[in-house]
Amino acid sequence: MAAKVTLLSGGVGGSKLALGFSKILPPQQFTVIANTGDDFQFLGLHISPDCDTLIYTLAGLVDPVTGWGVSGDTFHALEVAGSLGAADWFRLGDRDLGLHLYRTSRLREGMPLSEITRRIAAVMGTNCSVIPMCDKPVPTWIDTDHGDLHLQEYLVRHGMRPVVNGIRYENIDQAEPAPGIAESLAGSDLIIAAPSNPFISVGPILAVPRMKQLIQEARGLKIGISPIVSGKALKGPLAKMLEQLGHRVSATTVARMWADWLEVFVVDESDAGLRTEIQDLGLRCVVLPTVMTSIEDKKMLAQQILDMAGSR
Amino acid sequence: MAAKVTLLSGGVGGSKLALGFSKILPPQQFTVIANTGDDFQFLGLHISPDCDTLIYTLAGLVDPVTGWGVSGDTFHALEVAGSLGAADWFRLGDRDLGLHLYRTSRLREGMPLSEITRRIAAVMGTNCSVIPMCDKPVPTWIDTDHGDLHLQEYLVRHGMRPVVNGIRYENIDQAEPAPGIAESLAGSDLIIAAPSNPFISVGPILAVPRMKQLIQEARGLKIGISPIVSGKALKGPLAKMLEQLGHRVSATTVARMWADWLEVFVVDESDAGLRTEIQDLGLRCVVLPTVMTSIEDKKMLAQQILDMAGSR
Repeated sequence: MAAKVTLLSGGVGGSKLALGFSKILPPQQFTVIANTGDDFQFLGLHISPDCDTLIYTLAGLVDPVTGWGVSGDTFHALEVAGSLGAADWFRLGDRDLGLHLYRTSRLREGMPLSEITRRIAAVMGTNCSVIPMCDKPVPTWIDTDHGDLHLQEYLVRHGMRPVVNGIRYENIDQAEPAPGIAESLAGSDLIIAAPSNPFISVGPILAVPRMKQLIQEARGLKIGISPIVSGKALKGPLAKMLEQLGHRVSATTVARMWADWLEVFVVDESDAGLRTEIQDLGLRCVVLPTVMTSIEDKKMLAQQILDMAGSR
Repeated sequence: MAAKVTLLSGGVGGSKLALGFSKILPPQQFTVIANTGDDFQFLGLHISPDCDTLIYTLAGLVDPVTGWGVSGDTFHALEVAGSLGAADWFRLGDRDLGLHLYRTSRLREGMPLSEITRRIAAVMGTNCSVIPMCDKPVPTWIDTDHGDLHLQEYLVRHGMRPVVNGIRYENIDQAEPAPGIAESLAGSDLIIAAPSNPFISVGPILAVPRMKQLIQEARGLKIGISPIVSGKALKGPLAKMLEQLGHRVSATTVARMWADWLEVFVVDESDAGLRTEIQDLGLRCVVLPTVMTSIEDKKMLAQQILDMAGSR
C-alpha cells in the first residue's frame, strides 16, 4: 500500500510534482496544500492563481505552453474589457473567467474558499484533494524600488523588473489552516515542500499560524525539493529575489530557510557538490534528477520521493 | 437641416427604431434615453440589458438572430460557470462579459453609470448618444403568482410564464434624470416614445422624478409609437401583461397610458380603425407601417416620423 502524501505547493513549479504524485497515488492518499498569498482581485473577481494552476494541471486542462490557464482558451472577454479601458495585464481566458465568476459569486454568498475550491476541483476532476492554505485573504506584498506592489502586480504587471527590498504577508497572523489541513498533515507519511519559491509560494503556507507546528508535530517524514538548480531558479523571480535580498543563489540557501522543520532536502544531480553544506545544516541530503520536463520525469521524481517513506 | 430627436427606448423593440434614426440623423442630433429598470446583478456583474442592446444594435454588433448580445459571440465562461453550479439562465456571451466586467469595475470605482455608458458607446461606435435614464439603480419588480420577481427573472428565468399582478419600480422616487437628459429634451424638435413596452421599458423612464415634467415643458413635438399591432405585441410580454392586469390588448390602451404627455400617437396601418378612439383621447393619430423587419423599414419609419417635425 502506497504512502499518504501532503504537498505544500505554489503554482506552475509545484504543480509539476503534484501531477507526478497524482499519477501514482490513489486520490484519497494525496493532498495538496496550495498557497493563496498570490490571490488577488482583478476586474472585481477573486483570482486564486496557484489553486487554479494546480487544479487545471491535475485535471489535465492546463495550457501546456504557459503552464497556467486553460488549454485552447479564448480571450474574448478580456479583449473587450481592455478595449474599453479596463485593466487587462492579467491574462484571463474566457473559460478561466467562468471559474472566477463562480468563485467570486460563492465567496460573496459567504461560502469559504476551501469549500469552493473543493467543489471546483471535484467538477474539474483533479483526482486528489486541493486545499487552499487558509480561508482568509492574506495578500503577499512586495516592497520594491517602485513602491509596495501586490505580488501579481510585481510578477505580471511589472514583469519582475522592480528591485525587491522585502516581502510581507498581510493579515497572516489572523489566518488559520483551512479545514482538512490538520487531518491531512497528521495522517501523512510524507510532508513535502514542492520545488516552489520559498518567499512567495511555500513561505506564506508556512507562515499561517499553527501550520509549522502542525507539520513539526506530524509523524510523516518532512522533505523539501530545491527550487534552485545549478545556482539558477527553474522559473520565476526566485534567483532575483535571493540576490536582491542579499542571499546566495543556491539550493543551500533554501535548505537553510527550511532547516527548522525539514528532515530531508532533495537537490538536483547538478548540485551534488552541495551535499556537505546541506548536511551541515542538520539535514539529510538526497541527490535526484529534479528537473521535470516530461510526464515521465514528474512521475519518476514523485516515485523516488515516495520511496523515502519510512526511511527515517 | 435635420431635426433634433430624443427617443425614449427599451431594448430589442426600441433599438430597431433607434437604428433607423441613427442612419438618417447626424450623431449630435440624435439621443436615446435608455430604460435601466431592467438592470440587475448577475454573477456579481452589473448588467444593463437595454443600454447594451441599444449600443450593440447602434454599433452594428448585435446578434441579428436574437436581437441582443454580440454577433458571433462565444459562451465559454458561462458554460464553465454553469458546469460548476453557478446561475447560467441569463445568456452572457464572452465578449458581452467583457463589457459587464468593465462596467462593474468602473461602478465600484464610483464612476456614474451614465459616464460609463457614454464611454462604452464611444468605443463601440454608436454614432449617437445613449444615456441611461438615471444613475441610481431602480430595479423593476414584477408581482406574480410565483412571488415577487425581478424583471429579468420574470422575463428570462421564468420565461414570462408567471401571472402578473402588478409592477413596481423600486427606489424610483430617489432617482433623477441622468446628466445630459434635460438638455437633450429641451433641445429636441421631436421627443419620441419608441414602440417599447409601456410597463417595463418606457414606464420606468417616465417614472423618474422630473422626467415627465421635463418632457412636458420641452418645445418638441411629443410622439408615441404603438408597441401593439393588430391586438398583439410584436414581441415580449406586453400582450400578456395588459391582459393579466385587466386591460384591452390594443394600441388604444397604450395611447391612453401616454395621453397626459403625448401629442401624436402612431399606429400601424392594420390599426387604422382605432383612429377615432385615439383622437377621442385628445391625441393626433397618425397611421404608418410600423412593423420594422428590414433596415429599410427602420429608416423609412424614422424618416416618416421625422417629417412630422414642425407639424404641430
